[in-house]
Amino acid sequence: MIRVGVIGCGYWGPNLVRNFVEIPTAMVVGVADLNQERIDHIKGCYPQLVVTTDYRQLFELDLDAMVIATPPATHFALACEAIGRGLHVLVEKPLTLASTDTQQLIELAEEHERILMVGHTFVYNPAVRALKRIVDSGEIGSVYYVDAVRVSLGLFQKDLNVLWDLAPHDISILLYILGSKPTSVSARGTSCVLSDVEDVAYMDLSFPDNILAHVHLSWLDPCKVRRTTIVGSKKMLVYDDVESLEKIKVYDKGVERPPYTDTFGDFHFSYRYGDITIPNIRFTEPLREECSHFLECITERKSPETDGYEGLNVVRVIEAAERSLRNGGSREKITYETRRPAERIVA
Amino acid sequence: MIRVGVIGCGYWGPNLVRNFVEIPTAMVVGVADLNQERIDHIKGCYPQLVVTTDYRQLFELDLDAMVIATPPATHFALACEAIGRGLHVLVEKPLTLASTDTQQLIELAEEHERILMVGHTFVYNPAVRALKRIVDSGEIGSVYYVDAVRVSLGLFQKDLNVLWDLAPHDISILLYILGSKPTSVSARGTSCVLSDVEDVAYMDLSFPDNILAHVHLSWLDPCKVRRTTIVGSKKMLVYDDVESLEKIKVYDKGVERPPYTDTFGDFHFSYRYGDITIPNIRFTEPLREECSHFLECITERKSPETDGYEGLNVVRVIEAAERSLRNGGSREKITYETRRPAERIVA
Amino acid sequence: MIRVGVIGCGYWGPNLVRNFVEIPTAMVVGVADLNQERIDHIKGCYPQLVVTTDYRQLFELDLDAMVIATPPATHFALACEAIGRGLHVLVEKPLTLASTDTQQLIELAEEHERILMVGHTFVYNPAVRALKRIVDSGEIGSVYYVDAVRVSLGLFQKDLNVLWDLAPHDISILLYILGSKPTSVSARGTSCVLSDVEDVAYMDLSFPDNILAHVHLSWLDPCKVRRTTIVGSKKMLVYDDVESLEKIKVYDKGVERPPYTDTFGDFHFSYRYGDITIPNIRFTEPLREECSHFLECITERKSPETDGYEGLNVVRVIEAAERSLRNGGSREKITYETRRPAERIVA
Amino acid sequence: MIRVGVIGCGYWGPNLVRNFVEIPTAMVVGVADLNQERIDHIKGCYPQLVVTTDYRQLFELDLDAMVIATPPATHFALACEAIGRGLHVLVEKPLTLASTDTQQLIELAEEHERILMVGHTFVYNPAVRALKRIVDSGEIGSVYYVDAVRVSLGLFQKDLNVLWDLAPHDISILLYILGSKPTSVSARGTSCVLSDVEDVAYMDLSFPDNILAHVHLSWLDPCKVRRTTIVGSKKMLVYDDVESLEKIKVYDKGVERPPYTDTFGDFHFSYRYGDITIPNIRFTEPLREECSHFLECITERKSPETDGYEGLNVVRVIEAAERSLRNGGSREKITYETRRPAERIVA
Repeated sequence: MIRVGVIGCGYWGPNLVRNFVEIPTAMVVGVADLNQERIDHIKGCYPQLVVTTDYRQLFELDLDAMVIATPPATHFALACEAIGRGLHVLVEKPLTLASTDTQQLIELAEEHERILMVGHTFVYNPAVRALKRIVDSGEIGSVYYVDAVRVSLGLFQKDLNVLWDLAPHDISILLYILGSKPTSVSARGTSCVLSDVEDVAYMDLSFPDNILAHVHLSWLDPCKVRRTTIVGSKKMLVYDDVESLEKIKVYDKGVERPPYTDTFGDFHFSYRYGDITIPNIRFTEPLREECSHFLECITERKSPETDGYEGLNVVRVIEAAERSLRNGGSREKITYETRRPAERIVA
Repeated sequence: MIRVGVIGCGYWGPNLVRNFVEIPTAMVVGVADLNQERIDHIKGCYPQLVVTTDYRQLFELDLDAMVIATPPATHFALACEAIGRGLHVLVEKPLTLASTDTQQLIELAEEHERILMVGHTFVYNPAVRALKRIVDSGEIGSVYYVDAVRVSLGLFQKDLNVLWDLAPHDISILLYILGSKPTSVSARGTSCVLSDVEDVAYMDLSFPDNILAHVHLSWLDPCKVRRTTIVGSKKMLVYDDVESLEKIKVYDKGVERPPYTDTFGDFHFSYRYGDITIPNIRFTEPLREECSHFLECITERKSPETDGYEGLNVVRVIEAAERSLRNGGSREKITYETRRPAERIVA
Repeated sequence: MIRVGVIGCGYWGPNLVRNFVEIPTAMVVGVADLNQERIDHIKGCYPQLVVTTDYRQLFELDLDAMVIATPPATHFALACEAIGRGLHVLVEKPLTLASTDTQQLIELAEEHERILMVGHTFVYNPAVRALKRIVDSGEIGSVYYVDAVRVSLGLFQKDLNVLWDLAPHDISILLYILGSKPTSVSARGTSCVLSDVEDVAYMDLSFPDNILAHVHLSWLDPCKVRRTTIVGSKKMLVYDDVESLEKIKVYDKGVERPPYTDTFGDFHFSYRYGDITIPNIRFTEPLREECSHFLECITERKSPETDGYEGLNVVRVIEAAERSLRNGGSREKITYETRRPAERIVA
Repeated sequence: MIRVGVIGCGYWGPNLVRNFVEIPTAMVVGVADLNQERIDHIKGCYPQLVVTTDYRQLFELDLDAMVIATPPATHFALACEAIGRGLHVLVEKPLTLASTDTQQLIELAEEHERILMVGHTFVYNPAVRALKRIVDSGEIGSVYYVDAVRVSLGLFQKDLNVLWDLAPHDISILLYILGSKPTSVSARGTSCVLSDVEDVAYMDLSFPDNILAHVHLSWLDPCKVRRTTIVGSKKMLVYDDVESLEKIKVYDKGVERPPYTDTFGDFHFSYRYGDITIPNIRFTEPLREECSHFLECITERKSPETDGYEGLNVVRVIEAAERSLRNGGSREKITYETRRPAERIVA
């Protein structure tokens, strides 16, 4: 039985509490939040828990793991403290707000031989997993481009722009599905409500093999859209996370390029309009998968799919995007250290 | 009775023929197309017409006006010839493929005192007109940003990229609704099917008053989307051209910015979720409105709403966007000559 | 070249004129309508036609075929006259308003050896044809039931209720797809706007093999719905005529009945949720198919798919449904004469 | 603090447990279910609860109220026992499976002065409440007819047909919104999967003032539809429970009947196509409202909105509908006793 504590019970934390409560191999022991009202609510639902407004009290509960679902600016310090006290940690996305912090956190976790996992929930989403299987199978041919839209009338953050808030979802999905990392990014946005916090942003990412990915993020849109379109040379995929049953559509229509074109003759692409298939996806709650994976990694001492390095990749892309945002949409290169645990040992 | 000739009966031309046939104040006299099959088809439908594969024969039919619906690369030469022969001209969008050509065309039309009109059809679309009325009324407050998407599995062009093909629609809509012109643009795209013809493009435009407009264009998307979202400080608008009845939705929800924010206190935006209204729009075919307007301008010797200068504005924006596309997404300034007919006379 | 005349140019007639104009093997010679304005409009579009407000003048135009698109109450008399004058006839649905009239018309056509065809357009609709192919292939198993909805804010008729106006569509689709005829019907409706003309009706039909079909018809619904759901023992089909691309969806989900049920044990059906497939349908205008078929039947002297007997079947079902409507929803048997041309000759 | 027990933790029970756990004025003390696995799951989530497979043990927990969420066939006996032991009861719909049972239950509750409430959840649904407000305000004019569809690929019941399972929802909504009771009903259905349990049913109900209501119920439909259309003389309403934001649409379009019709002249209805409004509905979980109402009725000793008499009305309509189903769709009268508590005292 893995003993779990949770810091942060605002918007997302209660879902983490519920999942760890319901998984038989874990036991939520204590929950902390600065807000007494939230704490009272949690205590009402789960009278068996220790609740507190001082997270330090959780360290006295003989925990194995700490789950951190606080505002991003506090992730680094809280995660450091928890790892320092010998706990495995699951941190909500974004892992931290600076790649240097993330690197330090990774090193700390390696030093203490603790699991460091970031909550890139979509990587555990059955629909995203199905998407990756389809792309990897070659069914859609080579990927031409990806267009992602994640907009709604959202929850505003006062100290964090829409990039840091929403982009971790799409970047982690892109890294996972394409199996590669973007080499450059440019971003444009606007601050409508607060003068210095972007609430709308557009980002384009260059991936290897000339793949373009474009991401539209907004907290200021009347419609809730969460759609990713993947256009391949043979087929096209649409993943609509708002749909309940028809989450993925595979469009068997594409454009075939004739082997040569006659300069003087007519020019015609041959369109293959074909069937559309909506594969059945056995849906489970992505967060349940994520929580189970965290527990499994602790038990089996294995590295999570969304480990610190994945968290670092995402933070680096957002850092570069934010530089571009500040520079009026300049194209920013993104560099990745390749130092990985194995190499580190060698070093 | 205004005697009309039409050059070009491919994809769009037959709609122009049909409209001018059905409007009582006009009479289509002759139609030209290089393709004999198209010509035969038109003759089958309208046996009363002179049809020819040589457009020059149309000049012998005692016409008042010529409608040019040929590939864009031929617009300039054909329009010059028609104006030179004393005809009023309606040219499909884009008016030409270069601002210098457009300027020359404008001057020629002024010299010959002929109407020069460009077919920015959406300006005549009742839904777009309703959008402008709503924006102008102040109902949505000040405009924060506009997001436009125009994608489908489209008709490819071999010598024209998706910008020149589709952007005229969105740019003309933006110019019309915002009543101002963008000062700079940046664009990114990719050429998936043909190596040198972009079939996907993203464009962001800076308008005065810090308004951002973003446009997504694609010939390579499995879904047909034609949606414009206008986010204002009080309300939000969605114009969905694919919807048959619910073309415009007015969302009475927005974010209210508190008059001041207490740096040390909690920070909350107040969301006003409100009703959604779908105004009834008496729909008429936009092309019918456009054709009627052209005839009216001829009769009343007045300047069209989408005259040569409007065509020039659109061409300039696309030229700048294409420069950006060639320069990896650089931000390109757009300059507009302000010389207008009245000033010209003074000069 | 088959010379065609058209009587009736109101709501539907112009579509018939346009199709026969565009088909190369036919030539529309004359068009009649009581309304001078409609006639003028048609003349404006097709100056080559003889137009008249007196349909009798069409008989002087040396026609081969007459198309009748007038109000249903006039179908019988006009069709009789046209056949009597040696013309093949295509009559809009419903063929007539009484089965006795329809029988007389069939006999007259057989006597004069003329083609008598009724415009059950949906039988020529590529989506309906695809539906039938899927059902006939056995892919969905045996048909359990069919649910059809055809509602909108419709055009009211003052002398014809919604059953006679809309039911011919659904009944002809059901007869075509199931390949059998209903044995009984009951109907319920209400007259909202006019006291004696039902504008809303529900009809349930018993088909052989215990198949239930239910039809909902309304002129008084804010949404336009045209949906047919076919539930089979293995799969389910939805045909949504309002959709432009996704007209037919095949749901690979069904309920499997265990071979036996243990009275004392738990009882579980096994649901097979599976993929959804949207077959690509090469769409052509159904009316074009219908018109071409009529011309082909004339040329090849063959019996139309929607001949007088099919028209008679539909009229009989509606007659029985109307009796039920008058009797408060009583179940009414429907009898069909099996006398067919071949047998008739024997007789 | 009201002490609550819950019998039945299958499909719906856990939602009741969760709501009573979260409401501060109540305290769930114990939960019973025959299935050990369900009980273990509940205990895992709420370790503070007494759980048991023998519901009788709950009577030893000093409860104030019992919530019964077991299969309908057991409702009557369990509710009798709970009331007999002095508990207030909330029973899931349908209250019982026979009007005689329901009457007996009502009498028992009156005798013991206990609250008897039935879980017609939709009466507590904010969207249904908004619907009633709109209808009562007169905004839509007089109601012409109501069409309700409640279909999906549903959970089969082996001993209860689709009428008893789903019709309580629509009948309780109709009774609530129209504020009157149907005088007759006819129903048709079919048993596709099991030979003697209808899984598809159509029901039409005659309400006073000549209002027709039609209900379509199915466990065998590939699409989940939960839509109620209310057509009034001035406006039309659509309530789509599957929509998350746009639950109610008010269509300002209707048909105006001219004051008189000229028998010899043309006949035209005047259609007023108008705006569509989607009122904002502050959504709360209907079950939360229901549970709170139950507790409030206990505390304030007042009669619930969905008391035993409402439960009885619904059972009577279903009984009549089932008679019709057995008689091939016969029209069955529905009679209601008007004896109400107050009158009863007089008697």
